[in-house]
Formats: sequence, structure tokens, C-alpha cells
Amino acid sequence: MKPTPAVVLVSGGLDSATVLAMAAQQHAALTALTFEYGQRHAHELTCAEAICHAQGVRDHRVISLDTSLLAGSSLTGGGDVARPDSIDAIGATIPDTYVPARNTVFLSMALAVAERGGAADIYIGANAVDFSGYPDCRPEFIEAFQAMARLATRAGVEGMPLSINAPLIDMSKSDIIRCGTGLGVDYALTSSCYDPDGSGRPCETCESCLLRAEGFAGAGMVDPLVGAHP
Amino acid sequence: MKPTPAVVLVSGGLDSATVLAMAAQQHAALTALTFEYGQRHAHELTCAEAICHAQGVRDHRVISLDTSLLAGSSLTGGGDVARPDSIDAIGATIPDTYVPARNTVFLSMALAVAERGGAADIYIGANAVDFSGYPDCRPEFIEAFQAMARLATRAGVEGMPLSINAPLIDMSKSDIIRCGTGLGVDYALTSSCYDPDGSGRPCETCESCLLRAEGFAGAGMVDPLVGAHP
Repeated sequence: MKPTPAVVLVSGGLDSATVLAMAAQQHAALTALTFEYGQRHAHELTCAEAICHAQGVRDHRVISLDTSLLAGSSLTGGGDVARPDSIDAIGATIPDTYVPARNTVFLSMALAVAERGGAADIYIGANAVDFSGYPDCRPEFIEAFQAMARLATRAGVEGMPLSINAPLIDMSKSDIIRCGTGLGVDYALTSSCYDPDGSGRPCETCESCLLRAEGFAGAGMVDPLVGAHP
Repeated sequence: MKPTPAVVLVSGGLDSATVLAMAAQQHAALTALTFEYGQRHAHELTCAEAICHAQGVRDHRVISLDTSLLAGSSLTGGGDVARPDSIDAIGATIPDTYVPARNTVFLSMALAVAERGGAADIYIGANAVDFSGYPDCRPEFIEAFQAMARLATRAGVEGMPLSINAPLIDMSKSDIIRCGTGLGVDYALTSSCYDPDGSGRPCETCESCLLRAEGFAGAGMVDPLVGAHP
């Protein structure tokens, strides 16, 4: 256990639930941050709350962002949700679910919270395998952000080794699910769908649902979320 | 004139008024961003509005940030305003007016706006001379942010040479004032004071007022703001 606290970005999805469980193994105190920025569905926020509660996080902050700031993606209402013909069509180009500079904005805010709270570690569930089309999900982006963050802060100037941790970056969805299951993550509490119905039931046809289904199949497991909506 | 638009951070202060004038020389279209984040005085926002109007900026956005996010500095109400005994006491250490990760958060949001609007240039009035104690006003921070930003964005991935421009970074306050005056900046519209009275009259004793007074004296000019409040 590290004595310093950590800041964890929690979206309500499968990846961030796993990262939160990984961070909880390493740090006695966690601050979770969830952003509200004009997502298509508020269900994500409900899931983020449930995930943090299940993990025993006492300091969970939901931060509202000016909705115009991160607009310009089908995730924030700028177009239709992509329905790929097959799993192979995902990741070939920068998808229309890419939100300009999203991880940069989220990590910057996490950096502000970390510096204020004396945290030397920030965790993000970025993944370069399934989201190979997102510029800000690549390992070289995470490394560049960390280099910048060390120069940007009082902690960095004074020699505290601030780290941006993206432990899922090279993992497949199946590996993430296996890892999280081993840590006791309840994936029934998470949401991955870009377009769930009013009760949070996943559409099972969007890009994110396809990746999730493939992940559970690859791990040889049943998705409790699909099982929960018969 | 560059054909691409630019995004300019405008605080309402002397430095950002100068940077806005410099950017207006280079770009046919500008988007100005001003952040509202629990500053001690709303007068800064009024000044930002006036500066943008004077410069003919049509797209000026005031973005509200969660006030808890950038708390932890005397500028945002966390303590008393510093009243240095002399100008020589400024910059020796990280001052208590330093707001954790402020420029990182501001530049990240500017990056989101730039990417969405097709801008390849972001301008910031960071200055390493007068603010040598601020980690995020150093040239190495600006360079690291630019390197990160090029990896973070679709534009960067597709080869657009995104630039973070901090043209004042090595200039003295006197040089900034001379430069801005040459570009027609009306410094009567700006505000530098950390603790102005209700009408916007500067206190003339805080760190920022002392730096401003020294700047005008060094440029051999009278500060129109001080003249305007006899």
C-alpha cells in the first residue's frame, strides 16, 4: 500500500470499474472523479456512483463541464451512434465517438485535484487495443501527459514523482474482465452502451456493446448486465 | 495572416490583452476563452469582455469551472492576498497566488475548443520573468504541453502542426507594455490587481499591482488605469 492518496477517473464503464479496483489495491485513500459533459445518457453517472460505493470510495466528486466544450462527437449528441457491421470495422479510423481532447481535459482536472490533495498517482482506464482510433488512448499520449504534468506542478518542481497510471492500456477487453473479476469487480454495476434505453438496458448493437460482448466471450464468462435484462 | 483560426486565453489582465492583440495580427479569426473559477473579483470578467470587444473578437466564450476544482490559492479565496515588502521578494518561491494546475486546465480546454474549431494555434499570456515561481509559466512547461497536445488530438495524428504560443514568456513587463502599446492596446480596459475595490480600482499594494507599476515605470509610461482612478 502506498501512503499517498490517488485520483481515479471513473466513467461508469467496465474499464474504469476495473481501474478503480486496481487503484484500491495500491492506495489507502482514493478520490474518484466523474465528469458530466452532455453525455447521451445519465445512466453512466448512476453507474459511476454505484461502482464507487461498491469499492468503498468515500470521496467521489461529480464535476460538471460546460457542455459546449466537449461537443462535436456522436457521444455528446452531435450525430448518430455508430452501428458497425462487424467487430473488424472498429478502430480502423478515428471513430465519430471520439470526443476532442477529452482525456486531456479529464486528466488536467485530475491533476488539479491531485496537486491540491497531495496525490502522486492518477489512474485512467484508457485502452489502446479496443480504442486504437482514439489519439488520446495511446501509450505515447499518456507518457507525454505525464512528462507535462511533472513540469506543470509544484509537486513536480519539488521532486514528487507524479505518475499517470493507465494499467489497461495494452490489455484486451477479455484480459480486463478477467483481471477485474479476480479483484471482485461486479460488472453488473457498469454501463458500456452508447445508447441504452431508459432503464439502462444496453442496445447490444453499438460499437461499445460489441466490444463488451466480445470481451466476455473471450474471457469465457457471461456478462451479468445482459443477464440482468432478460 | 494565417488562414486558420486561433484560440486565445483572455483573463482580463495586461498580459492577455497584449497576447490577444498579437494573435489578431496573425489570424483572421479568433476565439477568446475566459474562465470563471471563483476568482476573488468579477471585475476581471468585465475587463475580459471589454478587451475582446475593443479587439473586435466576435467569438468570446466565458466558461464556468467547478469552483472547488481550482481552489487552494489565495486568488480563489483560500487566504490573504500577499503584500510583499518589496519587488525583490517576488518570485523567490512558489507564491501563494499559484493555483494548482491552472494553466494545464485552461490550455486543455483551449485544446478541446481548438480541435473542434479547426484552430492550429493556441495563445496564452504566460510569463516566466515576473512569475518565475509558477511551475506552469515556464518555457519547458509550454513545450511539454505542446508535445502532449500534438499526440492528444486528431489534428496532431493527421499532421496538423498544432502550436501553443506563449509570445510573452521571456519578456519583461515593460517590454510587454511597450509591445502592446505599439499594437494599440488600451490598458485602461485591463485589470491586474488581486484585490480591487467594488469599482475595480486597484489596491496598488499587492504583488500584481507592484509588478504592473514597475512595468509602466520601466516603459517610461503612465498607467492609464491608475490615472483613471484619481
